[in-house]
Amino acid sequence: MGFNTFGTHFCVSSFGESHGPAIGVMVDGMPAGIDFDESLLLHELSRRKPGQSALSTQRSEDDIPEVLSGIFEGKTTGAPICIIIRNKDARSSDYDSLKDIYRPSHADFTYREKYGIRDHRGGGRASARVTAGWVAAGALAKMLLREQMSANICAWVSSIHQIQWTGSVAAVSPEVVEQSPVRCPDAEVSNRMIAAIEQARAEGDSLGGIITCVVQGVPAGIGEPLFGKLQARLAAAMFSINAAKGFEYGSGFAGTEQKGSELNDSFEMRDGKVSTKTNHSGGIQGGISNGAPILFRVAFKPVASIAKQQDTIDSSGTSVQLEITGRHDPCVLPRAVPIVEAMAALVLADLWLAKPH
Amino acid sequence: MGFNTFGTHFCVSSFGESHGPAIGVMVDGMPAGIDFDESLLLHELSRRKPGQSALSTQRSEDDIPEVLSGIFEGKTTGAPICIIIRNKDARSSDYDSLKDIYRPSHADFTYREKYGIRDHRGGGRASARVTAGWVAAGALAKMLLREQMSANICAWVSSIHQIQWTGSVAAVSPEVVEQSPVRCPDAEVSNRMIAAIEQARAEGDSLGGIITCVVQGVPAGIGEPLFGKLQARLAAAMFSINAAKGFEYGSGFAGTEQKGSELNDSFEMRDGKVSTKTNHSGGIQGGISNGAPILFRVAFKPVASIAKQQDTIDSSGTSVQLEITGRHDPCVLPRAVPIVEAMAALVLADLWLAKPH
Amino acid sequence: MGFNTFGTHFCVSSFGESHGPAIGVMVDGMPAGIDFDESLLLHELSRRKPGQSALSTQRSEDDIPEVLSGIFEGKTTGAPICIIIRNKDARSSDYDSLKDIYRPSHADFTYREKYGIRDHRGGGRASARVTAGWVAAGALAKMLLREQMSANICAWVSSIHQIQWTGSVAAVSPEVVEQSPVRCPDAEVSNRMIAAIEQARAEGDSLGGIITCVVQGVPAGIGEPLFGKLQARLAAAMFSINAAKGFEYGSGFAGTEQKGSELNDSFEMRDGKVSTKTNHSGGIQGGISNGAPILFRVAFKPVASIAKQQDTIDSSGTSVQLEITGRHDPCVLPRAVPIVEAMAALVLADLWLAKPH
Amino acid sequence: MGFNTFGTHFCVSSFGESHGPAIGVMVDGMPAGIDFDESLLLHELSRRKPGQSALSTQRSEDDIPEVLSGIFEGKTTGAPICIIIRNKDARSSDYDSLKDIYRPSHADFTYREKYGIRDHRGGGRASARVTAGWVAAGALAKMLLREQMSANICAWVSSIHQIQWTGSVAAVSPEVVEQSPVRCPDAEVSNRMIAAIEQARAEGDSLGGIITCVVQGVPAGIGEPLFGKLQARLAAAMFSINAAKGFEYGSGFAGTEQKGSELNDSFEMRDGKVSTKTNHSGGIQGGISNGAPILFRVAFKPVASIAKQQDTIDSSGTSVQLEITGRHDPCVLPRAVPIVEAMAALVLADLWLAKPH
Repeated sequence: MGFNTFGTHFCVSSFGESHGPAIGVMVDGMPAGIDFDESLLLHELSRRKPGQSALSTQRSEDDIPEVLSGIFEGKTTGAPICIIIRNKDARSSDYDSLKDIYRPSHADFTYREKYGIRDHRGGGRASARVTAGWVAAGALAKMLLREQMSANICAWVSSIHQIQWTGSVAAVSPEVVEQSPVRCPDAEVSNRMIAAIEQARAEGDSLGGIITCVVQGVPAGIGEPLFGKLQARLAAAMFSINAAKGFEYGSGFAGTEQKGSELNDSFEMRDGKVSTKTNHSGGIQGGISNGAPILFRVAFKPVASIAKQQDTIDSSGTSVQLEITGRHDPCVLPRAVPIVEAMAALVLADLWLAKPH
Repeated sequence: MGFNTFGTHFCVSSFGESHGPAIGVMVDGMPAGIDFDESLLLHELSRRKPGQSALSTQRSEDDIPEVLSGIFEGKTTGAPICIIIRNKDARSSDYDSLKDIYRPSHADFTYREKYGIRDHRGGGRASARVTAGWVAAGALAKMLLREQMSANICAWVSSIHQIQWTGSVAAVSPEVVEQSPVRCPDAEVSNRMIAAIEQARAEGDSLGGIITCVVQGVPAGIGEPLFGKLQARLAAAMFSINAAKGFEYGSGFAGTEQKGSELNDSFEMRDGKVSTKTNHSGGIQGGISNGAPILFRVAFKPVASIAKQQDTIDSSGTSVQLEITGRHDPCVLPRAVPIVEAMAALVLADLWLAKPH
Repeated sequence: MGFNTFGTHFCVSSFGESHGPAIGVMVDGMPAGIDFDESLLLHELSRRKPGQSALSTQRSEDDIPEVLSGIFEGKTTGAPICIIIRNKDARSSDYDSLKDIYRPSHADFTYREKYGIRDHRGGGRASARVTAGWVAAGALAKMLLREQMSANICAWVSSIHQIQWTGSVAAVSPEVVEQSPVRCPDAEVSNRMIAAIEQARAEGDSLGGIITCVVQGVPAGIGEPLFGKLQARLAAAMFSINAAKGFEYGSGFAGTEQKGSELNDSFEMRDGKVSTKTNHSGGIQGGISNGAPILFRVAFKPVASIAKQQDTIDSSGTSVQLEITGRHDPCVLPRAVPIVEAMAALVLADLWLAKPH
Repeated sequence: MGFNTFGTHFCVSSFGESHGPAIGVMVDGMPAGIDFDESLLLHELSRRKPGQSALSTQRSEDDIPEVLSGIFEGKTTGAPICIIIRNKDARSSDYDSLKDIYRPSHADFTYREKYGIRDHRGGGRASARVTAGWVAAGALAKMLLREQMSANICAWVSSIHQIQWTGSVAAVSPEVVEQSPVRCPDAEVSNRMIAAIEQARAEGDSLGGIITCVVQGVPAGIGEPLFGKLQARLAAAMFSINAAKGFEYGSGFAGTEQKGSELNDSFEMRDGKVSTKTNHSGGIQGGISNGAPILFRVAFKPVASIAKQQDTIDSSGTSVQLEITGRHDPCVLPRAVPIVEAMAALVLADLWLAKPH
């Protein structure tokens, strides 16, 4: 299997470069007979697309998808679904001056080492632009999960730089999250985050942060022992996203400072159903969902593209001073929220289909 | 591909249960002509085996491997290598009373939900005993990496419960780590960790912690863009290990509180080689190694098997009081060190072979 | 891995339906730095396209490919290459009357059984139109093989219905084959084949036949033991083509009537190279190429779409009389020649890349 | 996925060499809760094992399997099942003189080219001895198919050298086949085949032939379009068997001489079920089973190991005269019958599990 394909049962293959004719995705494994919800597809893409607010890059892309296959009379047919999204506002000339320069903490050097050649325009294949295809695939996965599992995936920004929101998961809903331009569930904290991002932009700098995701409604029994563990698949999915540097679920890193007797989730019967009194397990035990909400957090570093002058070298090894002038997000977290959700949906769709039905 | 196989080029298939006749592993993809180093295999298994110190479970297993295939006259032949390890000291009767009980934070309930049936003896397939096979496979991967890449993998315990060691990576070596029964590079901190573990055992409780791993000597260009990113594969590998709850590399979670200008790793020429002045990237950029040391950390929760009395239910939904009397580790981190190294070796061997040579 | 992907190292994913917006292919695994030869791509597609001679279907498709990704400044970049081909002359109304009818020996019934739903227009996903994408992928594979292996793949029509050409392989070349509208290397036999096809068309009937393929220039050592045997991969590739009913290589079915002493290929040194005196092995021993020409034959049944009136049933089980009025080939073999070559190229590219280099 | 694994849902991984400690197989994907029928496993292995009649090699192997994992209290658990079979009567010294010789039409030369090293003892990894593991896996597949699908697989020898049996499929049953030492359903033809084999043995020669296989009871809808076609998977399975040179299903090669109107299988309702009046399709349409019996034929060449003196070369290129003195079958077809059935069972189990249930 190629490294541009994710999943073994719900197989998502990604193609395209930032400044090529189009980026896209092919989904193989979607069951037949699922309702195709175009409005959901458009909604998810609009949440990820550039230029959606003053906080994001000003590259202007409508990100209108074209579905080339696999849908007939409003339903999936079981055949692969290919969706392409044309690149329209690619300004490759922005990148001419970067052709031979290794931007700090970018993939320029490593791609050159690996391939001996690279499409330098806008990061080429390494650009986060390719995640538009993932979000399209994620929308298909959500259509499947909605119809077969009633799972509800909701992610939000829980911190940007040193500003944290530590409210209760119970207060979060997709509607609340979407009301905030930074996708933080609290208006006051959102405003502080916005101010921080605007200041970073003014300074030519960038900010990172943490996205939290909760998935409700996953039945017990999803996930595979050993190398298909739900947490392992979620982690692999999240680390596919540019700038992700950390992943934890349930009790995570903090839980290493507690004792087994404090963290064990006792079983009890609740409403006639096997449940746990607490959820330090984050909804996963032995790699398999236990019916409790799945909870995980993803750390994103501040993006590497900053306007501030930086020292680096070019491909001949000569020291250069670099000022990046392309259009970039000073903080990608708000736009990464739908990507996190999409990747979680891909994992759940994949493991759902792997389960004997 | 089955979910009991890890890797696409260096394919490791795991089989066996804690209390069955044997556990084992089949490695497919090992190149021909590699020197088979039996002493390395035995050494790695001895680092993981139970009963190696007063701190670990007293189940007594020599963990002597039998190589069934793929080696001829001291060299690999390119054929699959199957290694089995007999279970000798399995005391299945320890588990008779647990047959119908869902132990808190164990895989008992989720396996039952998934399969409708389970081998309850010693955790069966979900037991960490199966990692003996992974360590055997990791030893084979180390033989490959040593011969073709000169990579050096070293993991250690950097925290247990609330006791942390925060010394310099430069001070760490496999020799230093092995001198400590808890595999922490510092003698004084080790002693405090040992005391904490002994106290937890006395209380019938368990402790978690963090393992740090550094890989030196990986050349630039290893890893695959998109869904074969080195960090994604490492994370998936680590989350395959029982009790892992968090993974971060390079600047990790802490780096979310810094700015792009603080974290970007400027390139420079050093000793005629493209290098970075800092290593917040943790040796990986765009999913591909950049030649700097690869650095990551794995959080482990305290293990779920504790002697303290716990509330739970049985498979009929009846509340029960549970006291686990089997032989268990109060803290698995010391024995998890070689497992972390083995899984890292599997990832590196796999991505190394995926690289066009 | 999805069932719409072929190959493990040179991974070809196919999408599209006969009467959807487009069909296409994504190739993952093409090494970086290979010259992209657009003229070869166009040439191969023109050999397969409908309407190329009076003998084929009169559906008019230019089959002009659009390359969406993976090529930069005339070279492959190592990123996936997606190629789409728009459907232009789809006359879906031809198929309205067939919506609920199970055409004999077509995939109508089995698709309905499998998916509960199907795109009936022009055979939908089951249409041989999707092979245009395979031929595009095959052209990419030929670019790779030409640059790295110097392999030369040549297929031809060796029989149509009861008319056989039994001349010497030495007399065959791509140029000779292309001179014949039926792609038989002999002009006189070609004329008889053409007459037979024209008569079948006049009768509303269809004809099958056999395609022979020889691959010269494959070095020894390509192919994988056990389940990646070169002959197994070639057979799987050929049986992916609609209407293929038989595959044999080397001594094939006829060789079952000879003795071991008659068929064994003795080794000898020839021009300083290990060679075989005869080639009953068809260039493959133990699943691995031995350096001799690879020889195989594929049997194609007469296509199921015939104009003659036929008895069948509709999806309600009612008996109906069927007359198919769409545009069809009375004999697909001439157009299947480039498909056979393309699929052989995919197999060789895949196994070539699987070889440690 | 490694090349020693067959299948994507019912994954069979093979390991072992002819003269190593053991050969074996790991099956990943067997559903939980299937009855484990040890007698069936032993029966299938006994049909394949050497020394079962005067016609086969006199190497004496009991081929007693040891099940290492995946079975608990008489049922499958969903965990991988590993089965090993010890090599007992390996006489490696038989092969000392062959160490550097390239036996004609064997894999000696190609393995050397591919790996640079080989275990020459008894063919090593290339030996048909490894098929004992496949037969064990096939027995597991039969247990699954029996419980979930009621499929009935029956293969037989339909020709040896120039002696053919052309009786009706209706006359064939496993019981009838097993009455014949050559596994041909007719006693008189069997006797002629036996005489031919004995003569070939006396001459130091070997014979090939054809095995026919029919699978009854497969429901419509099994198989995957495009690259998972049932016929493609069957062909790949059969060409994994040593000495297979041809595969055809349904109308096969002979059907290329008929017309579409003669071969099309008209649909009709029979016993309230969609059926076909004829079965030229061999039970497969568009790559998917249509409910009719699946019919295919496999051509086997005479095995390469003959006692007659042969010309060949050694690895230095020197011409040598070769007389093979090991223990070999003059005709492998009788023992290949259970292997053909096993591989068919693997394909059906795999595609059965791939079907959404």
